[in-house]
Amino acid sequence: MSESSGVRGRTIADIPVGLKTRVSRTVSESDVYLFAGISGDLDPNHVDEEYCRGTSFGHRIAHGALILGYTSAASTQILHAFDRPMVSVGYDRVRFLKPVYFGDTVTVNYEIVGLQMEKERVLSKIEVTNQRGELVAVATHVMQLVD
Amino acid sequence: MSESSGVRGRTIADIPVGLKTRVSRTVSESDVYLFAGISGDLDPNHVDEEYCRGTSFGHRIAHGALILGYTSAASTQILHAFDRPMVSVGYDRVRFLKPVYFGDTVTVNYEIVGLQMEKERVLSKIEVTNQRGELVAVATHVMQLVD
Repeated sequence: MSESSGVRGRTIADIPVGLKTRVSRTVSESDVYLFAGISGDLDPNHVDEEYCRGTSFGHRIAHGALILGYTSAASTQILHAFDRPMVSVGYDRVRFLKPVYFGDTVTVNYEIVGLQMEKERVLSKIEVTNQRGELVAVATHVMQLVD
Repeated sequence: MSESSGVRGRTIADIPVGLKTRVSRTVSESDVYLFAGISGDLDPNHVDEEYCRGTSFGHRIAHGALILGYTSAASTQILHAFDRPMVSVGYDRVRFLKPVYFGDTVTVNYEIVGLQMEKERVLSKIEVTNQRGELVAVATHVMQLVD
């Protein structure tokens, strides 16, 4: 179905199941370090290269919650032209499947897969891949129309 | 059970179910704006006060994924002295229950509630409250011991 995100409307029924968008980003050291400061999570897995040489990862890795942050941009992009505001209600079954290293380029593939009419909620499937096409994270995202 | 996080050990059996920690943070405008830049999510709900005056929220609100980011610090803190590295495997049933405004002080209550022995995974219950004691977010976090 359409990859465009110019969909407009005011009701949940105006939202097309199957609509997709994608966002790519090269994960920078500054992304991870700023996220460490904002979140307060300075775990050595994220900020201590010498420590990481002694782990099975070998290098510093991005926070899982940061990867989820990147998906937030896709959820905003997909219905940016819609005539009512939408907010994030939550996520189901988020899994970080492979480590994401500094310099990796991740692509968030975001697809609307279902609607909950009575609650005016939108369910979307998220798959995040790296530059080698490996799946590094998955989740289901729940958004809701608000006034 | 203990609120301390000086627990040490090398195996999943060394991790005490019932261990708790908490982290508080006043949500700053800079937190939200830096997160918008890092994530690429510049939805008007987060960065456009004039737009928000016309919504039911009334003011800019923090990203849900940012609130989840704050919980990452609690997950690192709770077993910081442990003798093996641990990584975030994911989250189950994340729900953002109430808007979080700039200037709100959120407290992340993080408690280990279960262990998966064979996979060496730790399951924790996350409850985030605001300065009025209102529950603003909940999730289950899954961590795993690695080498």
